[in-house]
Amino acid sequence: MITKERIAQEFQRIQQEICSGLEAEDGKAVFNLDEWKHEVAGGGHTRVITHGNVIEKGGVNFSAVEGLLPQFMKDKVSPDATHFFATGVSIVIHPYSPKVPIIHMNIRYFETNAGDSWFGGGIDLTPIYVNVDQASFFHQCMKDVCDKYDASYYPKFKAWADDYFFIRHRNETRGIGGIFFDYLKPDAGRTKEELFAFVSDVGRTFLKAYLPIVSANKTIPFTPEEKNWQLLRRGRYVEFNLVYDRGTRFGLETAGRIESILMSLPEHASWLYNHIPDKESAEEKTLSFLRKDVDWVTMAEDKTIG
Amino acid sequence: MITKERIAQEFQRIQQEICSGLEAEDGKAVFNLDEWKHEVAGGGHTRVITHGNVIEKGGVNFSAVEGLLPQFMKDKVSPDATHFFATGVSIVIHPYSPKVPIIHMNIRYFETNAGDSWFGGGIDLTPIYVNVDQASFFHQCMKDVCDKYDASYYPKFKAWADDYFFIRHRNETRGIGGIFFDYLKPDAGRTKEELFAFVSDVGRTFLKAYLPIVSANKTIPFTPEEKNWQLLRRGRYVEFNLVYDRGTRFGLETAGRIESILMSLPEHASWLYNHIPDKESAEEKTLSFLRKDVDWVTMAEDKTIG
Repeated sequence: MITKERIAQEFQRIQQEICSGLEAEDGKAVFNLDEWKHEVAGGGHTRVITHGNVIEKGGVNFSAVEGLLPQFMKDKVSPDATHFFATGVSIVIHPYSPKVPIIHMNIRYFETNAGDSWFGGGIDLTPIYVNVDQASFFHQCMKDVCDKYDASYYPKFKAWADDYFFIRHRNETRGIGGIFFDYLKPDAGRTKEELFAFVSDVGRTFLKAYLPIVSANKTIPFTPEEKNWQLLRRGRYVEFNLVYDRGTRFGLETAGRIESILMSLPEHASWLYNHIPDKESAEEKTLSFLRKDVDWVTMAEDKTIG
Repeated sequence: MITKERIAQEFQRIQQEICSGLEAEDGKAVFNLDEWKHEVAGGGHTRVITHGNVIEKGGVNFSAVEGLLPQFMKDKVSPDATHFFATGVSIVIHPYSPKVPIIHMNIRYFETNAGDSWFGGGIDLTPIYVNVDQASFFHQCMKDVCDKYDASYYPKFKAWADDYFFIRHRNETRGIGGIFFDYLKPDAGRTKEELFAFVSDVGRTFLKAYLPIVSANKTIPFTPEEKNWQLLRRGRYVEFNLVYDRGTRFGLETAGRIESILMSLPEHASWLYNHIPDKESAEEKTLSFLRKDVDWVTMAEDKTIG
């Protein structure tokens, strides 16, 4: 029986595994732990890492909270739903080096007191400089975990990520995308047990997809100009999170714990007026990849990393 | 006769005066000029200053655009309105020194093809460290310009600024406020001519209120720790602008020129997880002032600056 307690427990286990894996790769910093209570019921464990060898600022947040259903959710649930329960793991990692991509992952479960329930989640990668082989490797990891459950998942969830991780006012994607899915409900073809297994497996794909890329890139030297480009790309990340990200907006609307919601923001970010990269520069090349519908899986033949 | 052309022309003159005044105070950098066209009709003159003696990044934007009335404006206008005209001047100045406050000003005029029309605007100051005398001086300037037109303006528009320049998810104001007003329409007590004079006068109060503070503070030395505090406060500024600022949201929703809309963002900003200033530090003292309903005008007896 898939209870909300069992889901929350498994999500917390995934949080632990991911923190351990990131600490080992970083080699210096360890995650701190802040336990907090939600103003209505429940709470979370926010784990933040700063000033490591590799990671400048990163957070792995677990939460399980209950509350009054916010007004803007009413059209998503049964008419007689009044309260919600939500649990999830949310990760954003901002490395020091512009050679190591920013990564984000989220898995979540939502239910109401009227019997509505669904899973959601996603992983997406934001390289400061796009490396085609690594982008292809990353998407192959996403495809692999999807294909274990349903051949339709990867194409659907990859397209969903392209649409979701999109900075409309810039007409560019946040990075090279990945997968995104929401409102995954049990139906004739899929039990809740299977959906739970899929979402947990997405959580466990995080380290498999990210650590090889970190490991391959973390010692590559970089220039001050490359660092400046990273700060600008982080500015775009801030724009996405504050303007479009649903988790952030949901947190702001439901008076969630603000430090846990905004731990996704980088330590340093930058904005220049009307900055346009030089013609045929590495920066311009990266921008050219920040669009929807790039078929990353078939882009590179060699997906061996490192 | 107050035509939209006359209003736009006067607003452009105010833009010019302000750019000249800021250049003289900065002593090094000059404003560049980007002329641009709106995708429907009209356009703007975006003037940006960077890397001066005092100003790290600042913008003074004039625009006069026409377009289809966006959906979210429909409840503000006559039922048969289909198109809008909007003109305004928007300013944000980010100085290098944490001793020199960030400032924002906006004056604007809006009309529809169904005969609706109103003025709006505001000026607010965001010191990185609150100086009570200077805060009091600044508010006295706001009160003076308001009192010339209507004794009810300052109390009303000061309270409106407290409510508007408020970062709800942080439960703190953006700075020490100032004045904010919107939907100022001609009525029995006030002609359009008078409202236009008031709004223009608000525009011309910008330099009178800001330059004495810049001049008094620009050569005060500061420490790296004070600079870091500035970067954090700028992070809050970014949060306000991307999450709450109506002008920014309006621009994003109506596909405005993105570089002009987001020129309000600082060159560098920073976020730390759960940063809490030391007890009885200057930073804690500043935070204690970032709340609504501070009676700044009567706070200091001496409002002489410099």
